[in-house]
Amino acid sequence: MARIADVVSFRHLFVLSLALNVSLILRGVNQNEKHQSGAPMAVHKGTKASQMRFLSFPSESAAAAAAAHETQPSVDEHGGQRVINLDHGDPTMYEQYWKAMGDKTTIVIPGWQSMSYFSAGKNLCWFLEPELSTQIVRVHKVAGNAVTEGRHIVVGTGSSQLFLAALYALSPQDSSNPISVVSTAPYYSSYPLMTDCVKSGLHKWAGDAKQFDKDEPYIELVTSPNNPDGFIRHSVVNRTGGILIHDLAYYWPQYTPISAPSDYDLTMFTVSKSTGHAGTRIGWALVKDVEVAKRMVKFIELSTIGVSKDSQLRAAKVLEVVSDSSEQAGGSEYPESFFHFSHAVMTERWRLLREAVKDSGLFSLPKFSPAHCSFFDNNLGTQPAFAWLRCDGADVDDCESFFRGHKILARGGKHFGVSPKYVRVSMLDREETYSLFIERLSQISS
Amino acid sequence: MARIADVVSFRHLFVLSLALNVSLILRGVNQNEKHQSGAPMAVHKGTKASQMRFLSFPSESAAAAAAAHETQPSVDEHGGQRVINLDHGDPTMYEQYWKAMGDKTTIVIPGWQSMSYFSAGKNLCWFLEPELSTQIVRVHKVAGNAVTEGRHIVVGTGSSQLFLAALYALSPQDSSNPISVVSTAPYYSSYPLMTDCVKSGLHKWAGDAKQFDKDEPYIELVTSPNNPDGFIRHSVVNRTGGILIHDLAYYWPQYTPISAPSDYDLTMFTVSKSTGHAGTRIGWALVKDVEVAKRMVKFIELSTIGVSKDSQLRAAKVLEVVSDSSEQAGGSEYPESFFHFSHAVMTERWRLLREAVKDSGLFSLPKFSPAHCSFFDNNLGTQPAFAWLRCDGADVDDCESFFRGHKILARGGKHFGVSPKYVRVSMLDREETYSLFIERLSQISS
Repeated sequence: MARIADVVSFRHLFVLSLALNVSLILRGVNQNEKHQSGAPMAVHKGTKASQMRFLSFPSESAAAAAAAHETQPSVDEHGGQRVINLDHGDPTMYEQYWKAMGDKTTIVIPGWQSMSYFSAGKNLCWFLEPELSTQIVRVHKVAGNAVTEGRHIVVGTGSSQLFLAALYALSPQDSSNPISVVSTAPYYSSYPLMTDCVKSGLHKWAGDAKQFDKDEPYIELVTSPNNPDGFIRHSVVNRTGGILIHDLAYYWPQYTPISAPSDYDLTMFTVSKSTGHAGTRIGWALVKDVEVAKRMVKFIELSTIGVSKDSQLRAAKVLEVVSDSSEQAGGSEYPESFFHFSHAVMTERWRLLREAVKDSGLFSLPKFSPAHCSFFDNNLGTQPAFAWLRCDGADVDDCESFFRGHKILARGGKHFGVSPKYVRVSMLDREETYSLFIERLSQISS
Repeated sequence: MARIADVVSFRHLFVLSLALNVSLILRGVNQNEKHQSGAPMAVHKGTKASQMRFLSFPSESAAAAAAAHETQPSVDEHGGQRVINLDHGDPTMYEQYWKAMGDKTTIVIPGWQSMSYFSAGKNLCWFLEPELSTQIVRVHKVAGNAVTEGRHIVVGTGSSQLFLAALYALSPQDSSNPISVVSTAPYYSSYPLMTDCVKSGLHKWAGDAKQFDKDEPYIELVTSPNNPDGFIRHSVVNRTGGILIHDLAYYWPQYTPISAPSDYDLTMFTVSKSTGHAGTRIGWALVKDVEVAKRMVKFIELSTIGVSKDSQLRAAKVLEVVSDSSEQAGGSEYPESFFHFSHAVMTERWRLLREAVKDSGLFSLPKFSPAHCSFFDNNLGTQPAFAWLRCDGADVDDCESFFRGHKILARGGKHFGVSPKYVRVSMLDREETYSLFIERLSQISS
């Protein structure tokens, strides 16, 4: 009961802080003045920033992973430059909004609830919580980013598990050779590793979709907006026998203009990137073909016997508030919708980044054309969850190493199947880390 | 807040009911009188029994899976016999204890907590919540069932994921042939399916360990107490090049006498079977070799990027109360420990089963010798989570079909690599379902 009281008191504190913060963003205050001192945009009490640890993804060397990732000071304990880890897309930026929402998304689970393997309801996916199903359909209607009619919802332990389930479901079971899996480079760096993790006889990684010219069936992964570069993608192979998986983790209004509801055969989403709740490990797939959906369910049954009920209930609650905040935006309960808030933060972060990059003369960034967004009903730019930077200097062959030399950890182009002149930087970390990154970028060029 | 109030009122109700219930068990009341009418041993308010659904495990035919699993009445909506589904080991029996514990294991998670992929602490397993780690070590000390010193803890999405992670970690990466995976029959029916799910080039299912005679490396799975038959198991191949995985999901005091703390290279446990929280999907492995632990972490990173934080926090809370209830048993907070309660329920269920089986003359059950249990400091019998029944009649070749004819769904011997004369029946369902099963068993023989 004491913890509820804590949350309520946090709520008052952060609603106040959020209101101040948003007005600052919208007025285009010079952030450098505010951030170079390390002052956060909003109060960060209660976060465990100093306890963060490294995701030992393949792009991180053991040495880099061993370095401590401390926040707060811009110098480390020895007085040297602090390591800024933007290698992975940890979406801690969103903590700020959810703190401001106070106990609206607090969940309470009694010890005897959700003990069974099974969920209620009559869903084909027997471990899908009905309330999560309801809120998934609703949030897609609110955001206007996906058709849910005529789709089966399959819940997964993050979209990683759904990707593996989709490969299992779509690969021919009786073939003597594994099916080729391709994606246009630069592609998400984990896809090759996941596809070939246990040397499956069902599927094998076959690299860049643009280079694929074999006259045989294949699976093409279409990530749109793309990780790492943020561009809207379409399938490129366009040949008979091609099976498509659409990863739309970033197709949300804060990152890219929503042109129309997506309407594909198999589409994956995740709360990690939509609401920032990476720790819950909840993703979902919208699947047209009932047999494919059944096979995905079978895969998840065999690999984890379902998906955490506790996290499903939490994700349902968070998605409910995302929808509520859009439908009641401007009211007393929700002064600002989740998407408006997140869009404003991303706009400001990209403004600061483009400014720093322009000043440096050392890097370049992708250029996006403005497009109409049906959610905001406005012509808007693109502001991806990752910055895809190119080191333009003739003397810099390896942009990842160049950044590491300046104690910025980011993932180099080779992990995404392209030149090491590129590097991917997360735009979703906590405000203090992002500010430090912009500060460091300015120092590099000066 | 209203939900907290619900729980508190439930608590008072169930503490009362539990006290009554336990005294009845210990006095050896004739349960048939109480159960044949379908009267539950304890109040079951708030359970969603009528909403339970089928686990579409391979042993269930599509027809069986399509049948409704309704509780409460012993007849279905058409006046026919109700289908009793004891095919899987859904541990809903334990709801009763946790209801009686009221809000002791209630968890409250504010919307902004546990959003990061990363957990705090310095564990090799970067996604392991420190509090879960603490409570795992503690509960093993309390139960006396595992050495944790000198072990790395790896958390998984149930022990299924840990099994796959262990196979990945222990299989040679550079071999041209997949390593053989064996287990003594009868073995857990999912092991062959999981091992070969994606036709891995790293490992392949090679059947009964007793039949394995190839002169090559192998992985032997030792499930002890064994699923399905409940016997204590040791490795049987006993040859150079053998790598062991110990699945000790059922090595807890309520099921089997604890002879000594287990002390193996790689041991797996799960809350599903220890506390009954199957819906959380939380398991853990105790791993001696640091490189093996690292490779298991890598597998979980590639397949699900970690494990639900919400469920880890919940599992930590539940394990804490299990330990508290043992250490403070008999006090005002904990009139009875979790293990005492569970042991008493299992004792009574096995007494009823052995009585019904003896009366029928149609079946036989495994015979276990009493042994000293260090936890209870007493000579005690074995009372497994599954009943491994044999249909003794010469006219019954397929015990699963025989049971299905009587509308009892259970898993036949062929799924466990042995004769179809055997069938596995879950002993862990809710009281009303179990009572109905005993009633049905008595009807079969009469």
